[in-house]
Amino acid sequence: MTEKRADLVLTGRHLVTMDSRGTIIEEGGLAIRGDAIVEVGPAAALAARYAGATRIDRPQGLIMPGLVNVHTHAAMACFRGLADDLPLMQWLQDHIFPAEARLTGDMVYHSTRLSLCEMIRSGTTSFCDMYLFAGDVARAAAEAGMRAWIGEVLYDFPSPNYGELENGFRYTEDLFATWAGHDLVTVTVDPHAVYTCSPDLLVRLAQTATDHDSLYVIHLSETEDEVASCRQRHGCTPVEHLERLGVLNGRVLADHCVHVTDDEIALMAGRGVRVAHCPESNLKLASGIAPVVRMLAAGMAVGIGTDGSASNNDVDMFGEMGTAARIHKVATMDPTAMDAATTLHAATMGGARALGAERMIGSLEPGKKADCIVLDLDQPHLTPVYSPVSHLVYAARGSDVTDSVIGGRLVMEERRLLTLDEPAILARMREMAARIREGS
Amino acid sequence: MTEKRADLVLTGRHLVTMDSRGTIIEEGGLAIRGDAIVEVGPAAALAARYAGATRIDRPQGLIMPGLVNVHTHAAMACFRGLADDLPLMQWLQDHIFPAEARLTGDMVYHSTRLSLCEMIRSGTTSFCDMYLFAGDVARAAAEAGMRAWIGEVLYDFPSPNYGELENGFRYTEDLFATWAGHDLVTVTVDPHAVYTCSPDLLVRLAQTATDHDSLYVIHLSETEDEVASCRQRHGCTPVEHLERLGVLNGRVLADHCVHVTDDEIALMAGRGVRVAHCPESNLKLASGIAPVVRMLAAGMAVGIGTDGSASNNDVDMFGEMGTAARIHKVATMDPTAMDAATTLHAATMGGARALGAERMIGSLEPGKKADCIVLDLDQPHLTPVYSPVSHLVYAARGSDVTDSVIGGRLVMEERRLLTLDEPAILARMREMAARIREGS
Repeated sequence: MTEKRADLVLTGRHLVTMDSRGTIIEEGGLAIRGDAIVEVGPAAALAARYAGATRIDRPQGLIMPGLVNVHTHAAMACFRGLADDLPLMQWLQDHIFPAEARLTGDMVYHSTRLSLCEMIRSGTTSFCDMYLFAGDVARAAAEAGMRAWIGEVLYDFPSPNYGELENGFRYTEDLFATWAGHDLVTVTVDPHAVYTCSPDLLVRLAQTATDHDSLYVIHLSETEDEVASCRQRHGCTPVEHLERLGVLNGRVLADHCVHVTDDEIALMAGRGVRVAHCPESNLKLASGIAPVVRMLAAGMAVGIGTDGSASNNDVDMFGEMGTAARIHKVATMDPTAMDAATTLHAATMGGARALGAERMIGSLEPGKKADCIVLDLDQPHLTPVYSPVSHLVYAARGSDVTDSVIGGRLVMEERRLLTLDEPAILARMREMAARIREGS
Repeated sequence: MTEKRADLVLTGRHLVTMDSRGTIIEEGGLAIRGDAIVEVGPAAALAARYAGATRIDRPQGLIMPGLVNVHTHAAMACFRGLADDLPLMQWLQDHIFPAEARLTGDMVYHSTRLSLCEMIRSGTTSFCDMYLFAGDVARAAAEAGMRAWIGEVLYDFPSPNYGELENGFRYTEDLFATWAGHDLVTVTVDPHAVYTCSPDLLVRLAQTATDHDSLYVIHLSETEDEVASCRQRHGCTPVEHLERLGVLNGRVLADHCVHVTDDEIALMAGRGVRVAHCPESNLKLASGIAPVVRMLAAGMAVGIGTDGSASNNDVDMFGEMGTAARIHKVATMDPTAMDAATTLHAATMGGARALGAERMIGSLEPGKKADCIVLDLDQPHLTPVYSPVSHLVYAARGSDVTDSVIGGRLVMEERRLLTLDEPAILARMREMAARIREGS
């Protein structure tokens, strides 16, 4: 056996690879060089082969791919719990929109940093964010060493960030210019929704996405009201509207898709549309339950997202997996629906596919980016272990994550965040919340 | 101000009393003497008044009543994740029943201890348990200082514990004799369900409950199949069946009640029936969503339960609250349904009422038992704080609980369990699981 070079060897009790064969290695590990995985295998063999590497051994740990959160508004962490249990329009118009009108880039930056602390602590290593002041979101993510897909939200009316819409196009172009070739940050094109974007805007942004070979991220068919209003304005459903405009294609990452018919699922599947499933937000806002089981049966790429912390109210993807696995069983009245393996796949490889990044992230395989997390199984609620995959979906919580590596960089070690000054971030958020409270 | 005597004064940033006025005291605390609360109020005043007491100060802590888990099979922790994502009958007959047939009192004792670790760590201070070898469950709870309502499950066929049914009656009588007057353990009478208990058994056990002035705990209308089979055998629904037998009364704690009509809700409300709502188990087994909003509107006492760890797969009541608050919004398509305050009430005072213990537990008020927990709010996912109640339901997790007091006794301090040897319990469970795995 010749010694090979790696920077870091990480070993644990179980290694859940999420490769296409569902390989789980007991007493397994992975070797990382630079930002990529060079080998996955038995811990002892890796230790011998990469003797010069830094070692992190977690004898009671479960190692798995970092979770991929495909729909966030990270900076809304500053509005967490500001208003709950309200009808959607009252919640938006009386609470969220007035608060957002007073947002600044600085507030978005610091609020995103809070959300990044929470995401890393709960096992997320990639997120796809749609919000205002996207440049500040991207800056926060890059500084923290977090992998991110980020777009500035665009709509027909003036924005608290860029003002008139024409400035929004320039802002988006600037984002692409600023972050071109960045290791961690990928820019997306983000029309808000069919009810807030004119047909012209939807079409023009589709061209922007084509020009930059980027995702086109849009809230789609989230509520019954959205479908009804689209029928009224355009004589068709939101999905049909995008199809008629010629923009329903493989660049589309459609957030929510709660109210879609089987015909629409077939249409979207044929067009290669990707879906961000946000079960907890859809429940909390009484939007409904997306027909995810049928989307998966149609072969669609479906990832899981938390949506913003104002409608969830956290970004814990373990909680989101547990909810996803459970609600589809009752929605279909089939206890075999959305089983643990399917759910875990959606939160890892499914998310990677939804972002068009399935060759980069979502599983632990040689050549992929080294994005992985470790959970501590030495706890009552994760004992005994008959099936690691069952535990990850039905029993684990974000707080069980002890370590996180993104692109080969250790960003959390034994629950200590290494790239974010958490006490300062919490203190700053408390000050910001005092001002938000006074204004609301 | 005269100095008064207390054994312990506990203070924190927020004190959520759950009294009838919903009082929340900022910088509040409570004074405890023996097993009871003597005073609740501002921290500074308590500190001055009870200068001789032991002090526990949690400047970033939220103090609240301990959670009341009204339906558990705690010892099923040893089957956690053994089998999932299966049709109910296949899950029971191929996996759970064969495993249970090999249970011993010793296994139940040790598995209950594991569940107690998990319950205390996640903020539960009272639980209501139906299982085999109930005497061993009670012993484990009493030793750990946990408050518990415990009954031996009875049905028409022989039991792995007591064998023939007649022995089951004697076993139950022995339980009442053994635990009479105990500070923490209250014995209940537990017919399993209408589909496993003959009319004679249901009636005879109702008399037992009357004789001992105890609760009558029964799984009721959990699944559509249960209702259909009852109609076939008895020509009526399970609720009507109990009514016709004359046993539907205020002693009944009905677990699940997923498939009940408005007429049945009115009937149960009129009879004073109490309900244990188990949302996550009902979702995971594809049983359905109980009409809890209508039960509450009818004035019923509704508590929240986790059910066993084989169908949940944890006993985290914070997760259960989050699920309860969310699913009823989508079940009713009303985002104002089951709001945070209503949900938190169900998990505390609602549970206390469901157990007939509303004068003893469920809120922090002078004269009540000192059952309380502290959560650490100094964390990203609980920052900022606009509404403590919102956070408890929509963002907090069991792992946020740092301290727990039951009957005035500190059972967890800064995440260290004081009444249970957790490493030994985890090690024992791993050995037990190896034997269970071989047998299954």
